[in-house]
Amino acid sequence: MKKGAIKVSVLYPNKNGKTFDMDYYCNKHVPMVAGLLGDDVIGASVEKGLGGGAPDQEATYIAMGNLYFESMASFENAFGPNADKIMGDIPNYTNIEPVIQISEVMI
Amino acid sequence: MKKGAIKVSVLYPNKNGKTFDMDYYCNKHVPMVAGLLGDDVIGASVEKGLGGGAPDQEATYIAMGNLYFESMASFENAFGPNADKIMGDIPNYTNIEPVIQISEVMI
Repeated sequence: MKKGAIKVSVLYPNKNGKTFDMDYYCNKHVPMVAGLLGDDVIGASVEKGLGGGAPDQEATYIAMGNLYFESMASFENAFGPNADKIMGDIPNYTNIEPVIQISEVMI
Repeated sequence: MKKGAIKVSVLYPNKNGKTFDMDYYCNKHVPMVAGLLGDDVIGASVEKGLGGGAPDQEATYIAMGNLYFESMASFENAFGPNADKIMGDIPNYTNIEPVIQISEVMI
């Protein structure tokens, strides 16, 4: 991704009793979000947590989803009107309250 | 990044009294790591934390660095012999103990 782009990360902490339906997320949620946000999204990625830094350590996040935008204005413009629909889909694939991080791409 | 690739994320939590030299990280640390790991690295990215999901919320991570490999074997093969040199450079740019997460690229 190019320097200066805005990355919105949605991180799902891996805790006891928490569930995450990766199939629904990849095949239903992400395509729905991509459809709603349209051309404002300039990139997207999804990762599944495998482990931590030490052997046998669990991954801090069971899943991570990332969306890229040209600018904060583009993100806010795209996300604002669709926030309720996107957030409302979360219970369909997980009971985890995600950590959201907004970052600027440096490299 | 292609599906099935291994992503190694190094996440630097944003806490009071913690510092992170983004200039050193981007211009010294990342090039050093890329040089040491060589062709096993198939992608790299660095992001600077701007904020959280709510207005005026601080970013959970002050910085995030990501390296991509073809497989876990490729990562272990590349990182193992260079771990001491790479970890030993951390105090040159931060006093944060990073969170390490290994993930599989789904999308």
